[in-house]
Amino acid sequence: MRSGPYEQHRELLEQAVRALTTGECVAPFAGLAGNAATVDVGMRSTRTAGKVFGSLLGRPFELDQPGELGLVSTESSPYGIRMGIGYPRCDPAALVAAAERARPGWRAAGPHRRAGLAVEILRRLNTRSHELALAVHHTTGRPLASAFRAAGPHSQDRALKVIAQAFAELARVPEDLGWEHTGDTRRGKQPPPVRGSCAAAPRGVSMLVGCPDYPLWNGLPGLFASLVTGNPVIVAPHPRSVLPLAITVRIAREVLAEAGQDPDIVTLAVAERGERLHERLATDPDVRIVDYTGPARFADWLERNARQAVVFAQRTGLNTVIVDSTDDYRTLVRGLAVTVCRCSGTSRTSPQNILLPATGISTDEGRKTPREFGADLGEELNRLLGHPARVARLIGAITGDEVRASLADAARSGTVVHASEPLGHPDHPGADVRGPLVVRVAAEDEQVYAREWPGPVSFLVGTESILHSLAVFRRTVGRHGALFAAVHSTDPLVLAAAETAALDAGVHLVENLADDLPADPSSAVADLWGAGAHFVTGRFRTVRSWRRATAPDPSGLPVLAADALVDA
Amino acid sequence: MRSGPYEQHRELLEQAVRALTTGECVAPFAGLAGNAATVDVGMRSTRTAGKVFGSLLGRPFELDQPGELGLVSTESSPYGIRMGIGYPRCDPAALVAAAERARPGWRAAGPHRRAGLAVEILRRLNTRSHELALAVHHTTGRPLASAFRAAGPHSQDRALKVIAQAFAELARVPEDLGWEHTGDTRRGKQPPPVRGSCAAAPRGVSMLVGCPDYPLWNGLPGLFASLVTGNPVIVAPHPRSVLPLAITVRIAREVLAEAGQDPDIVTLAVAERGERLHERLATDPDVRIVDYTGPARFADWLERNARQAVVFAQRTGLNTVIVDSTDDYRTLVRGLAVTVCRCSGTSRTSPQNILLPATGISTDEGRKTPREFGADLGEELNRLLGHPARVARLIGAITGDEVRASLADAARSGTVVHASEPLGHPDHPGADVRGPLVVRVAAEDEQVYAREWPGPVSFLVGTESILHSLAVFRRTVGRHGALFAAVHSTDPLVLAAAETAALDAGVHLVENLADDLPADPSSAVADLWGAGAHFVTGRFRTVRSWRRATAPDPSGLPVLAADALVDA
Repeated sequence: MRSGPYEQHRELLEQAVRALTTGECVAPFAGLAGNAATVDVGMRSTRTAGKVFGSLLGRPFELDQPGELGLVSTESSPYGIRMGIGYPRCDPAALVAAAERARPGWRAAGPHRRAGLAVEILRRLNTRSHELALAVHHTTGRPLASAFRAAGPHSQDRALKVIAQAFAELARVPEDLGWEHTGDTRRGKQPPPVRGSCAAAPRGVSMLVGCPDYPLWNGLPGLFASLVTGNPVIVAPHPRSVLPLAITVRIAREVLAEAGQDPDIVTLAVAERGERLHERLATDPDVRIVDYTGPARFADWLERNARQAVVFAQRTGLNTVIVDSTDDYRTLVRGLAVTVCRCSGTSRTSPQNILLPATGISTDEGRKTPREFGADLGEELNRLLGHPARVARLIGAITGDEVRASLADAARSGTVVHASEPLGHPDHPGADVRGPLVVRVAAEDEQVYAREWPGPVSFLVGTESILHSLAVFRRTVGRHGALFAAVHSTDPLVLAAAETAALDAGVHLVENLADDLPADPSSAVADLWGAGAHFVTGRFRTVRSWRRATAPDPSGLPVLAADALVDA
Repeated sequence: MRSGPYEQHRELLEQAVRALTTGECVAPFAGLAGNAATVDVGMRSTRTAGKVFGSLLGRPFELDQPGELGLVSTESSPYGIRMGIGYPRCDPAALVAAAERARPGWRAAGPHRRAGLAVEILRRLNTRSHELALAVHHTTGRPLASAFRAAGPHSQDRALKVIAQAFAELARVPEDLGWEHTGDTRRGKQPPPVRGSCAAAPRGVSMLVGCPDYPLWNGLPGLFASLVTGNPVIVAPHPRSVLPLAITVRIAREVLAEAGQDPDIVTLAVAERGERLHERLATDPDVRIVDYTGPARFADWLERNARQAVVFAQRTGLNTVIVDSTDDYRTLVRGLAVTVCRCSGTSRTSPQNILLPATGISTDEGRKTPREFGADLGEELNRLLGHPARVARLIGAITGDEVRASLADAARSGTVVHASEPLGHPDHPGADVRGPLVVRVAAEDEQVYAREWPGPVSFLVGTESILHSLAVFRRTVGRHGALFAAVHSTDPLVLAAAETAALDAGVHLVENLADDLPADPSSAVADLWGAGAHFVTGRFRTVRSWRRATAPDPSGLPVLAADALVDA
């Protein structure tokens, strides 16, 4: 009995499900599981990974998918290596049709088998962590260590949490309603007893819109949430970063095919930039789920246009730091300096808005006005960026023109506290690596800071008071969303008020942790991310059926035979 | 300790939560609880209820709400009594602002207190069941017994299920994440241990769009789901049926005020028909949840325009009956005849499309072609409608011109099997009571039957085979939704295939139950309704916060004091 995919990964799954209720941290892929089960299959060495990665370059990437029309290459490495990988360009209608065909069999596989296969896909991804890190590094520009965190074990542990969540939610659908109607006693009538049963009805074909900066970190949760709840997934990467998701799709298809499932449960959709593939797929009548993480603009478009689908849009939004007071000013400034460096792409993960009273904050080094705070932050940034090796470890290479335009525009919108200068990269002199831009603005300049700026752009916003900071936070983040907020204060009442404001704005909050901001995979608290139950329950419906209690239960019948009957 | 609202209703709540997992039927308000707790507070007698109902007519309905601009009367009874109730017409902006003000206190009340108060509101509604039934009867035209089912104990038990579901989901949010970060072992660095906590963040102000035909049956689930998850609710009834929801809002406000909560957690919004109040509220930036049950047209409008909100739209859609074979032909025909009578309004609850093979169905009385089946159904309808007392019990009075237009149009769209004739009502000669219209069409006539028709309109659709019936069902209901589907077959393989097709279309299924169709509150299986977990989990977000493990936990602090600080 230990041969099925569920039995094979049962211990891991049960442990991950238990951790959901206890809140305990289970990270078997990163090996942080205490005395619980860990995954031990042997990750490929960095050297092997480098060779495998090199062997992928400059040639077609085979997937054997339906509807192939030719090859398409859309990637270029900001570190100057020639990518030249040709991905299969498939007819989107053929991909949707293939997913539709795969749907009944995947639903019939049931939650145990689906969850087991999902973990098996993760396990194989784990062995390829270094290769995936290289793929993320060279397509997104993230520094290598940061790419490893965003593509390797931490990302796999994060996906495991989603698998456990989906599995647990499906387990909660009661199979037998065990109900016998006792009749409408008022009129003395006794209708025949009725028996009911319950089933999870997956919504339908799911589409993952790939993130250009964190394709796996932000992609795996939606992919696995849909798979475990019984929905086939069409993975549509951002044209800038296809490879990490292409490797993922290939592994998923291998695992599915080996298990005798239709590999078209997971397919890759890539097109030329001008083809508007994401728009085409997101509005296909048969696409019923869309996952997206990124700026509000496309999230808004999806919610307006993908009306046939349930849209899980995580807006990166206005990540905000509220500064009130601190008993460790140096650590605060140093932490902030590190975090504002951490975004080189178009999906914001670093703090954009730093709110502090214009009258200053109280610190262990005395009162600090926004001007002084800005000067200290600028000085710390210069110190940090003075070492090329540190720059290479900390700052990613810029991949998009949007980021360059954003840096130029933002520099004109207030008083520049720290200018974004081109920095040398020790190994890749051609890479466009730039320091963060910090601009001081007033609270009234809401038209500047109440929208999301791509790249390493941060605003120091001078407010009237801490109460005003909290009000600005509540209003701007409540409207535009954010991945997180942070507060620094020595006053427990301010912390409690910040917690209330964060609840109001519906955003995660970090308290007095200087350089740990959970949106960036490089952060220590990043893998603590957890979406609400809604993230998985919205992917299926609970459907009931009723029959006379005396009728035979058809659930013993071969469902696939019945399917064949319908599909004939 | 038994004085708080939670302690008072603890047994009832715990029992309802247990029933969710076991699937067991718990109906304490209808007294169907086996040996479990029931509610025993004494319902007002029908005579008292009649007096109370009479005393409401022709005068202002007081609610003491903010922003009152005057009175508005929008109701008229299809049974000829003069309603003339003047409801407070309030500035929608003032209602939203009041709900926003009430929000922090309601969130801070916590799940136990909110669930306890919700049950207390239900308990008081229960004592007023007969009065609510009269209000539903006279505003929707539903026959009195059917109105009692849709407004009384069965409706309260249905709402209790939702309260239990919301309460159980909130209980699953782990308070303490109990997590200590063990560091990034790769680089040998040990960041300070971090402790996390979790909280449910209610989405924000909720709006209930009232249903003109089943204001309580379809309204209470959304109302209580939002309340228990911490969201204030603005109740916006359909202008045709205000009173049942107005009484509900008054009771809710009384319960809240007595408990020391802000009564503006629940308010009533009524306006003149031309004011487009629903559209105005549904697109208010502060309205974050919208509930609606009814035809697809307004559901589509909401999903397109209420973009700032999560929309829970239950499309009444294309309720479908698939007939393959039966071993009790008489009961099948009789049951169908009863159910097609059961819709006189604009929200479809009765079967619209009856699919059967053009070659006929096999029965215990031999093969029956659609023509023969139609003739038998028509004959049974004539028998049923021959008794005025039975007509009064079964058929509601028509309240809207849409229904009259629908009957006229549908009669021109195929071969009329049974014409809709005006019928006399024994007690109310002026009431517009009409028999159901049954029209025979071909499977090709999809432009006719693949849209929702208001009123008692049903189509007998001749298909090529049972497989073709299932394909038509899967396609039309998959696209346009439905409240339920029913299948009649003696072949277990057909039943299994129908279950698969229903899973595919995401719709509830009833097998071989002739007159029990769950969408109508009059049905025996109606109270078995249960929305998926999504219906409650979509009303809040799970928000996390992190701090150093050594920091004091601010959760012991007075949250309301912190709120006051922010709101200052």
